[in-house]
Amino acid sequence: MARIVMKFGGTSVGDCDRIKNVARRVKAEVERGNEVAVVVSAMSGVTNQLVDYCKQISPLYDPREYDAVVSTGEQVTIGLLAIALQELGLDARSWCGWQLPVRTDGAHGKARIESIDTTGMLAAMAKGQIAVMAGFQGLGPDNRISTLGRGGSDTSAVALAAALHADRCDIYTDVDGIYTTDPRIVAKARKLDKITYEEMLELASLGAKVLQTRSVEMAMKHRVRVQVLSSFVDMPGTLVCDEDEIVEKELVSGIAYSRDEAKITLVKVADRPGVAAAIFGPLADNNVNVDMIVQNVSEDGKSTDLTFTVGKADLDRALKVLEDRKTELAYERLVPDSNVVKVSVIGMGMRSHAGVAQKMFQTLAEKGINILVISTSEIKVSVLIAEDYTELALRALHSAYGLDVQ
Amino acid sequence: MARIVMKFGGTSVGDCDRIKNVARRVKAEVERGNEVAVVVSAMSGVTNQLVDYCKQISPLYDPREYDAVVSTGEQVTIGLLAIALQELGLDARSWCGWQLPVRTDGAHGKARIESIDTTGMLAAMAKGQIAVMAGFQGLGPDNRISTLGRGGSDTSAVALAAALHADRCDIYTDVDGIYTTDPRIVAKARKLDKITYEEMLELASLGAKVLQTRSVEMAMKHRVRVQVLSSFVDMPGTLVCDEDEIVEKELVSGIAYSRDEAKITLVKVADRPGVAAAIFGPLADNNVNVDMIVQNVSEDGKSTDLTFTVGKADLDRALKVLEDRKTELAYERLVPDSNVVKVSVIGMGMRSHAGVAQKMFQTLAEKGINILVISTSEIKVSVLIAEDYTELALRALHSAYGLDVQ
Repeated sequence: MARIVMKFGGTSVGDCDRIKNVARRVKAEVERGNEVAVVVSAMSGVTNQLVDYCKQISPLYDPREYDAVVSTGEQVTIGLLAIALQELGLDARSWCGWQLPVRTDGAHGKARIESIDTTGMLAAMAKGQIAVMAGFQGLGPDNRISTLGRGGSDTSAVALAAALHADRCDIYTDVDGIYTTDPRIVAKARKLDKITYEEMLELASLGAKVLQTRSVEMAMKHRVRVQVLSSFVDMPGTLVCDEDEIVEKELVSGIAYSRDEAKITLVKVADRPGVAAAIFGPLADNNVNVDMIVQNVSEDGKSTDLTFTVGKADLDRALKVLEDRKTELAYERLVPDSNVVKVSVIGMGMRSHAGVAQKMFQTLAEKGINILVISTSEIKVSVLIAEDYTELALRALHSAYGLDVQ
Repeated sequence: MARIVMKFGGTSVGDCDRIKNVARRVKAEVERGNEVAVVVSAMSGVTNQLVDYCKQISPLYDPREYDAVVSTGEQVTIGLLAIALQELGLDARSWCGWQLPVRTDGAHGKARIESIDTTGMLAAMAKGQIAVMAGFQGLGPDNRISTLGRGGSDTSAVALAAALHADRCDIYTDVDGIYTTDPRIVAKARKLDKITYEEMLELASLGAKVLQTRSVEMAMKHRVRVQVLSSFVDMPGTLVCDEDEIVEKELVSGIAYSRDEAKITLVKVADRPGVAAAIFGPLADNNVNVDMIVQNVSEDGKSTDLTFTVGKADLDRALKVLEDRKTELAYERLVPDSNVVKVSVIGMGMRSHAGVAQKMFQTLAEKGINILVISTSEIKVSVLIAEDYTELALRALHSAYGLDVQ
């Protein structure tokens, strides 16, 4: 007998029929002889409606009250799913975050889980009862309801799996697994059987929206085996696991892209000590997250060009911060560009094989694609290119690294 | 400084604009120098939607899960109202039933409040914070959410007022007070300034839908002064209070009617000991509530006619129970009639004045209205008449007892 945590997102529980469908998936898992806890999100659209109510009443809402309001979405789903499971003849009960409790820090609206008291749930599960827990919510140090921020139900599921020492955490979504790249763009994209935590983390933070970044971090920290699979099709998905569990390692596991980037170039900024701090300090103070940075070699020894990327949503704010400091920073002009895309190749194999980055640059060069900015980490290489080349670059790289479906 | 509990129903908090309006009403009360706790229902329509979800998934839903689902409606409203109050510059926070807690018995779906721990709320109110409590919900002995049954928010408000030793419990509704009779039928109906608990209890149980019967019982038991007033018009309503507080007592305070009645006559049923028990025992076993009963004097000493009333919704069930026992009860035939109405005159003055019932019978006789069944209590006289005469009877009685607006 294995202990499994099953997590279903908003689309999977979008209406009463879909909730009944989820109940049948859970029943099948129980009939395979497994002990099951389920984590669910709010029915799709419900959380947005609740957030909208809060904003209508006050754009500057109290996050503690916001949490009381938006956490109700998940509470509705757990009750309905428990009823649906009982209707199939199974013993089941719902658990709100405060009932376990799921203890979080006090950052209402974006709280982090600190611990989960599973005493009551384990006792009930030992008697054959299916536990149905509300994702996204917990109890703050003030004994008031907290929420984890959007997409937090993945994190709830992984945290529960860790606390229950579950054998696996199955995340049911509207895709059937993790692909080598976006199959909507590259028809030859291949579903991966397994992927390491480290690679999944890069994929998640680089724009693959299948799993929330924080949930992958938590899975990696607690070594929770996470499977991503479809709620609508009954077939195995992709297992996110430890490197040791993957026998045949690929050089490159996947190619991600993110259109959520914008590039800013400061032309002819003074080339002297402290200028980088003078630029990036105020941006950080204004909550602008800077990603890639490249500084050209100074030609005259007095000034240089500095290019970096920010999230598209932060572009206007970043430009304002820099314009306000034009005199101080003494640059010639600001050149923003939001028609860019960040393309990344990711693979654990990179650590031991040279030439992965070189193959990327060469492949793009052969297609006549100009690289604007480069950044690398131990297991990924990212380049910024003009957005028009997104599809061309993805297909060329996918073939070049031998990822195409045969 | 007075301590006031203000309660707003579903229509009063039906959308974000109305919630803002409620916040303004609360602010006005605070500005009069009062200490305020607010109790709210779910936004109108929300509870019905949630109940419908439960029924869609299973007509025989688990009431504990039903409670988890339907209690979310009130939780949304308390958060939104707290935000709206803060937006007006007031300190406010929401309280779920489990957070105080409001302790109830274990009858999920129709629980009764046993106690309210106001320690935390009183401490917060002492610091000038407005408490916003969810009506309709509490915490059962199993530490799971319970609900009080439809309309339970009135009871929550009165129970909170009792626990807080509040000076008054103001129930804001879509009517502006308690009237001598239904103003939609009798144009000369008059709004009462005050009414006793006992009279209000009769009115509530006789079909006046302004206050839930249980909330009036609780107000009477704990001597909570309850005011019924309009959430949309700013004027005093009707105070439900102790008899001592009413200086000018009326002989009759109000005239109520209920169309929710049906009459059954058992023709020529055996006139022998034990026959009433043989009839009403099985009805009670099948959850049929019998109200008025009249038995004719036997003419032949062997058989008699027995007439009684049941709720219209129970009529078919009652008939089936009786038909199944036709041999045993040995009646000749069953005559059902659902075209009837129960009209009642209510007044504390009845206890010390003779002739109130006589005036009722005489007034109806003068209008040619036949009385089918009569029942009386210490402070009311009820008659069953043909439904067609409802309006005529109400207007005639309203004038006869001197209740018409001058």
